[in-house]
Amino acid sequence: MQDSYPSQLLEDAVQAFSKLPGIGKKTALRLVLHLLRQTDSDVEEFSTALLRLKKEVHYCTCCHNISDTEKCAICSDPRRDASTICVVENVKEVMAVEATRQFNGLYHVLGGLIAPMDGIGPSELEIQSLVERVAAGGIQEVILALAATSEGDATSFFIFRRLQPYPVKLSVIARGIAVGDELEYADEVTLGRSILNRTPFKN
Amino acid sequence: MQDSYPSQLLEDAVQAFSKLPGIGKKTALRLVLHLLRQTDSDVEEFSTALLRLKKEVHYCTCCHNISDTEKCAICSDPRRDASTICVVENVKEVMAVEATRQFNGLYHVLGGLIAPMDGIGPSELEIQSLVERVAAGGIQEVILALAATSEGDATSFFIFRRLQPYPVKLSVIARGIAVGDELEYADEVTLGRSILNRTPFKN
Repeated sequence: MQDSYPSQLLEDAVQAFSKLPGIGKKTALRLVLHLLRQTDSDVEEFSTALLRLKKEVHYCTCCHNISDTEKCAICSDPRRDASTICVVENVKEVMAVEATRQFNGLYHVLGGLIAPMDGIGPSELEIQSLVERVAAGGIQEVILALAATSEGDATSFFIFRRLQPYPVKLSVIARGIAVGDELEYADEVTLGRSILNRTPFKN
Repeated sequence: MQDSYPSQLLEDAVQAFSKLPGIGKKTALRLVLHLLRQTDSDVEEFSTALLRLKKEVHYCTCCHNISDTEKCAICSDPRRDASTICVVENVKEVMAVEATRQFNGLYHVLGGLIAPMDGIGPSELEIQSLVERVAAGGIQEVILALAATSEGDATSFFIFRRLQPYPVKLSVIARGIAVGDELEYADEVTLGRSILNRTPFKN
């Protein structure tokens, strides 16, 4: 469809939406027309929620996760095990690990993965602050919970090298067959690693 | 994933986005995190584009299409044939018909289709204003260009009944095999109608 918007205001709003990842011109127009059908206060609420988030959001001074306060709720919770740090890419992964209810330590949010092709080097990420946290002492284990991609692996390896000098246990989350998956559909690398990293049978 | 957002501001923004059609919680979070990575002025621009659209947009007093002015650019263009009106559902369909460059008349934007299940009756749509436009005279043909769905057909039929008393030619856009389609994959109803409504062969 050729783009001949009947209104500049409409075109501006469509342009704004279509800058978002995964949203093309047609979807953007559909979203904007939906918002147009909402009440004035609905649209104002939408717009205010974004502006407030951008202007008032904090990043925890300890783990660098998004937070409403200087120190996030997890870092300031005395019931959590402050000697274990789980290193993750972003806030999404913090939420994913929290949802498992299997981890009671603290986090360290890198803010991305090393990706030289996208111009993201170690200094763009919260790696130095992780090293300082470990160097300050009191940490027994650092769990690397990054994506099983080449960027994730490269970042894990870089962090491993930086933390090696310190007396801290370094571990990586298990790679293997997902719970519920059939063996025949697993790729060879995953299946191979799941055999190499087999664990004692527990009943 | 259980929703335990580390920040209320983040949760508010995700909630706002996930109210949009076709956007779930995960996509909303992805979009919000993308906006967080943009500059302050980018986010402000986004937010302002929406607010301005909602507050300053006009609907053409003649065809009811979205417009920046009282009367839209198409209705106020003297080169267009004011005796032909193409009735469409929404601004998206105006843009689609305009993109064909096959129509030089004016439009009438209904703002939806009759859909009793969704509580949309004829009085919610710009049907009375269409009847008044035709009653005012000067119109020779009204082309119904609505969706080939039961709602579209019901709306076309309702408009047909309302305009029957007036000395105006009523037509419906052709239904048939799409250009480039194979016959064997067409549904029976479409193929049947394309045979019934066959047109003289032109070379």
